Amino acid sequence: MIKVVKIGGNVVDNEELLGQFCKSFAALEGPKVLVHGGGVLASRMQEKAGIPARMVGGRRITDEATLQIVTMVYAGWCSKHICALLQKEDCNAMGLSGCDGNVIRASKRPPIAVEGTMVDFGQVGDVKRESVNADALRQLLDAGFVPVLNAINHDGGGHLLNTNADTVASSVAAALGAELIICFEKPGVLLDKNDDGSLLREIDGARYRQLLDEGRIDGGMLPKLENAFKVLGQGVPRVVIQHSSAPLGASGTSIRL
Amino acid sequence: MIKVVKIGGNVVDNEELLGQFCKSFAALEGPKVLVHGGGVLASRMQEKAGIPARMVGGRRITDEATLQIVTMVYAGWCSKHICALLQKEDCNAMGLSGCDGNVIRASKRPPIAVEGTMVDFGQVGDVKRESVNADALRQLLDAGFVPVLNAINHDGGGHLLNTNADTVASSVAAALGAELIICFEKPGVLLDKNDDGSLLREIDGARYRQLLDEGRIDGGMLPKLENAFKVLGQGVPRVVIQHSSAPLGASGTSIRL
Repeated sequence: MIKVVKIGGNVVDNEELLGQFCKSFAALEGPKVLVHGGGVLASRMQEKAGIPARMVGGRRITDEATLQIVTMVYAGWCSKHICALLQKEDCNAMGLSGCDGNVIRASKRPPIAVEGTMVDFGQVGDVKRESVNADALRQLLDAGFVPVLNAINHDGGGHLLNTNADTVASSVAAALGAELIICFEKPGVLLDKNDDGSLLREIDGARYRQLLDEGRIDGGMLPKLENAFKVLGQGVPRVVIQHSSAPLGASGTSIRL
Repeated sequence: MIKVVKIGGNVVDNEELLGQFCKSFAALEGPKVLVHGGGVLASRMQEKAGIPARMVGGRRITDEATLQIVTMVYAGWCSKHICALLQKEDCNAMGLSGCDGNVIRASKRPPIAVEGTMVDFGQVGDVKRESVNADALRQLLDAGFVPVLNAINHDGGGHLLNTNADTVASSVAAALGAELIICFEKPGVLLDKNDDGSLLREIDGARYRQLLDEGRIDGGMLPKLENAFKVLGQGVPRVVIQHSSAPLGASGTSIRL
């Protein structure tokens, strides 16, 4: 069973967490794929370059100059720094954007209406299960490489597009029929976000509906769980939500249909 | 016969030249590897980030902040932009630094004496034929991928190192026993640098020694030819020096032992 592991900016930005995570990821047995987010370095570089960050409805508008910066940060520094750390742990990491080996093709997001006005998000792309070149990823896995994917993808027409790392992870897991392990800064799905003791070890569809009915799921957890059940419906056998420093796949909350 | 093609900053920085080159590289038959340099974007980013470029003896001192920027530029924007353009031309490019699949390991350059004082160049590494993981590159070539290498490599201990793209190209060609095609902004080796008609179509060892004796080789050309004969001595069957926009391997100056 292939495992797809997702880490976000909170891990990528923190050398101590990242070092711990890399050891733990290297120790994970079997074929595996890592998908990483970016973190605050992109905003810092954008600031230094004098490009104002423009957000609409919580999403970054990506003009050409911004695309260049996020590509430098995500596909450049973050990707290579993570791969060098993994190589040190004897994990044969290979940092890839979608253009590399054509592993993921994104489609440019058309202008959409946000609060009544049409907004062009620029060089932003969407990724779904069908965007993923599962054959190419399997070929690399079979050859002993560990794909380390970032959220910079391409459209096949020579253009790079900024996409969402969570969606990349879900799409890759769905395309490979892989287990999806989502790491964040909490031990898993908590009934009370201030009490680590309220961790739910297992959730299935029935329990999820019950928790929803009772209004017991924290607002911050809702999108993560919604997304988990969505990918479970696309052929992913199990989703694990856990802390980035805990043993991968063996802790946190295990979610099945 | 594998072909290793090298392009420098003059091509990477010029969208028109880069577009032409990508078409021409995509059309090159057989297994192939591209090695690209960086260009002026790194200096521009360094300036924007407020990091003064420090050069000693014509070489850049690479502290941690500078390493982060050259990694962002070479392994991030340049690598992914080139690969997206090549994918558009149906060339299955895969942009890699040395840490990716452990394809190249560099060794950190120890402090050396420059004009009487010891200089520590920082995060700068050296690459030679033995640094290249020829098996990994052959595995990728056999799987139909086209490695596109930049000059950011790793030491195996978790650190990235800035290396020289010309040396990367020579080392990869030597390790693979591949033909080496070096692209630059002239049609090839000229006897008179101001006269394209003085192009030498072929040079062998005897002719090279004769030209050297007669003092007829332009100073700017000398290091390129010295390097060509060095790699010919390491098992590279042929070196071609040519313009980046001319058909690859079929024009310029062909150099053999």
